[in-house]
Amino acid sequence: MNEVMKSIITRRSIRSFQKKQVENEKLELVLHAATQAPNGMRQEPWHFTALQNPELLKKLDLLVAGEGKSFFYHAPTLILVSIEQGNRFAQADTACAMTNMMQAAHALGLGSVWCNRINGNNEIDTKLTEYGIPQGFQVTATLALGYAAEPLPEKLEHKVNTITYVR
Amino acid sequence: MNEVMKSIITRRSIRSFQKKQVENEKLELVLHAATQAPNGMRQEPWHFTALQNPELLKKLDLLVAGEGKSFFYHAPTLILVSIEQGNRFAQADTACAMTNMMQAAHALGLGSVWCNRINGNNEIDTKLTEYGIPQGFQVTATLALGYAAEPLPEKLEHKVNTITYVR
Repeated sequence: MNEVMKSIITRRSIRSFQKKQVENEKLELVLHAATQAPNGMRQEPWHFTALQNPELLKKLDLLVAGEGKSFFYHAPTLILVSIEQGNRFAQADTACAMTNMMQAAHALGLGSVWCNRINGNNEIDTKLTEYGIPQGFQVTATLALGYAAEPLPEKLEHKVNTITYVR
Repeated sequence: MNEVMKSIITRRSIRSFQKKQVENEKLELVLHAATQAPNGMRQEPWHFTALQNPELLKKLDLLVAGEGKSFFYHAPTLILVSIEQGNRFAQADTACAMTNMMQAAHALGLGSVWCNRINGNNEIDTKLTEYGIPQGFQVTATLALGYAAEPLPEKLEHKVNTITYVR
């Protein structure tokens, strides 16, 4: 089967990570994939922040999830997607970039999962400049990234009858 | 380079199509890719309608774009993504499925482009049962699909300084 199709079909969300950090080369490829995503009117209103600093990761977890919890499953890398405030394609562009990153990560032997905790929380999502979010940008999604600590989850069951052909 | 990365980097939006129809096998793979997309809480609130009937395609164009115009660039296949009305992940799930389809299409030698005309138009988007949209679903995006009539567009220029590393 086509390599891309195979990768699309075998990708899974990963929620358990090794402590081993993602190599710079792989991280750069994942982020490059994000920047190549389709987006509305080619505005590319996005910024991608790769957070790997252990103290800041812990501090962010404390802020978002609370003591002793991790909203990104203690992944060694957290990629924060932020979009210029007010952009009307914010949600779609975010999801396109996230999908590209998840596919790239899987193809490079990494695991990832989309974590929805910061976005939509206005107490937090626009006040993260110390974490590398530019002024005027709002966090719209985050991606936990690292090496899976467990084998890939089994093939998932999917809904049936989700496709109609009109010929 | 990794085949998936290569495909992500070389994908382009295609806005000019041959009359040649997409083979059933390829169409099924593109739609299968859609169903494998990440989605919020694994609700899979989506439906995918592959419209290839020439009369219905023409009728839809007349309804949406008006006489003599084509909002999907006269592609031989139009895939309509619809989501259960009221689902809170509608926009993100749609974009994830669209991205998977665009990647799959490119990897299979097809061209595609995201067309935003039906969604957000409440005069139209919930009244398309004759086009294969289930009752209670709302069209959130459409994908023009076919063989490109021109060579792939050149490498695009992208915004710079869209990535920050915090280590």
